Amino acid sequence: MSGFQVLVVAGTHGNEVNAPWLLDQWQQNSHLINANGLNVCCVEGNPAALQAGTRYLDRDLNRSFSAELLKAPKEKAYEIARARELLAVYGPDGSNPSQIVIDLHSTTAGMGTSLVVYGRRPPDLAFAALVQARLGLPVYLHEGDSSQQGFLVESWPCGLVVEIGPVAQSLLHWKIIEQTRLVLEGCFDAISKVKSGLANYPKHLVVHRHLGSIDFPRNENGTIEFCLHPYRQGADWEPIQKGDYMFIGLDGSLIKFDGDDGSIPLFINEAAYAEKEIAMSLTKREVWLLSDHWENALSKLIV
Amino acid sequence: MSGFQVLVVAGTHGNEVNAPWLLDQWQQNSHLINANGLNVCCVEGNPAALQAGTRYLDRDLNRSFSAELLKAPKEKAYEIARARELLAVYGPDGSNPSQIVIDLHSTTAGMGTSLVVYGRRPPDLAFAALVQARLGLPVYLHEGDSSQQGFLVESWPCGLVVEIGPVAQSLLHWKIIEQTRLVLEGCFDAISKVKSGLANYPKHLVVHRHLGSIDFPRNENGTIEFCLHPYRQGADWEPIQKGDYMFIGLDGSLIKFDGDDGSIPLFINEAAYAEKEIAMSLTKREVWLLSDHWENALSKLIV
Repeated sequence: MSGFQVLVVAGTHGNEVNAPWLLDQWQQNSHLINANGLNVCCVEGNPAALQAGTRYLDRDLNRSFSAELLKAPKEKAYEIARARELLAVYGPDGSNPSQIVIDLHSTTAGMGTSLVVYGRRPPDLAFAALVQARLGLPVYLHEGDSSQQGFLVESWPCGLVVEIGPVAQSLLHWKIIEQTRLVLEGCFDAISKVKSGLANYPKHLVVHRHLGSIDFPRNENGTIEFCLHPYRQGADWEPIQKGDYMFIGLDGSLIKFDGDDGSIPLFINEAAYAEKEIAMSLTKREVWLLSDHWENALSKLIV
Repeated sequence: MSGFQVLVVAGTHGNEVNAPWLLDQWQQNSHLINANGLNVCCVEGNPAALQAGTRYLDRDLNRSFSAELLKAPKEKAYEIARARELLAVYGPDGSNPSQIVIDLHSTTAGMGTSLVVYGRRPPDLAFAALVQARLGLPVYLHEGDSSQQGFLVESWPCGLVVEIGPVAQSLLHWKIIEQTRLVLEGCFDAISKVKSGLANYPKHLVVHRHLGSIDFPRNENGTIEFCLHPYRQGADWEPIQKGDYMFIGLDGSLIKFDGDDGSIPLFINEAAYAEKEIAMSLTKREVWLLSDHWENALSKLIV
């Protein structure tokens, strides 16, 4: 048996309960998910937050994997300790190492089933292209945002985030569980095809490239003064034009979009992002030609 | 000016953010909600939980108003102290007394806009009948459940709970805010009509009388083993028959309804109720003739 292992993380946020439930059921009954013969290791990202039913205890675990935080000896947050522990055990150089990680999330935004890639690492792009070709999923490429750093998957040589919504926090929901199962099987199938040399790469990868984020209009005390306009609620992945309604006040006053025509908003009204001062992120849809370099980089990891 | 005052409570659960936001906006701009000239006092039920973004700190505030808990000197929970404080200030014998309370909630269940009445207190039934006649809202009559006690509104001579959903916890959502505003105005209109002697009572009150609650199927460790069946998700207020699908396992196994034909499930898959071991409550729809006694009891409070 090769040392190749896929790590699947669920419950990185403790109030996203569907993926942890799915993996728990899978551990009781191996027939529930087809792993295509891969060596898969499942772990709860933030078990203490899952137990408490909250997103996190001290800080967002999925913003706790920056090299700076991991190395800082004085960092006492539970999530920093947990990040170090996950890396010590399951990291690429850990005691039970994995080379690829799939981090399963849910969102209150109407994202459907989607993939998130952080930066432009060649194996990530190759992996996302294979899953996109198989399942038709949209890909959000997150990059160049200094206010958002330290994502879990960046600490492994290759990693995708799966985001599925809309679903309320802490709510077990059949549809979300089934979507999670399908995307996991799609990921396993893609990896096993690479392993057996049968990967059928598409010619293109369609990405929604992160441009920046928009906050709710707030007053001088930081209180939100305008809600999301109902036209935008659940309208993730739909392009917007200058002048489209964005926010609305209780007196009916409107705030319109003032950016580039064709911008595509994502993570619209994700409940957990209000504290990050994000009402939505804006992206640009781009079609990228696949590169041999990406494919080779992914193949090298999967042995 | 008479001493009559209506108390409106929002954020009794700290992760139900729409009503608190509405009342905060109203305090800045009195034109946003028509109070029909009533003396209205607004208060945040659980400000510490709102600040923390959680349902509660130590225990559910809306199960903390039982006489037993309020009198127990050793009870140190924040929510017990807060319950005592709310009563000392806004209670019927408080320093700034109110005679009627409206407690604004939201839910992840597909309840639409609905009213909840606790027990069969005559003024509650009269008030609910007036609001139902005006807005056509369904009424859930909660009673006779020894596992669920100590609701806030029971500590005032008259009180209704408003439940609006579906909406995720901690999510500001325009539709929910507008529904909350409409039902508040309907309540104020009903009270002002009683005050001016112009109340137009319907002949009947339609209630959904609480029969009991059903938990998710769990294993011996208390872990949920079957999800809600997708046919039930969002199907609050829809009658079910013996044999209807209730829960589903990941292997496709089904659990069917085994109760009385025509039972009507409510609060289906409310995220906060899993910890209370409630997947849904079952009710029976009944049509009650209005009673003069109810109307007189309400009129006596509104002077």
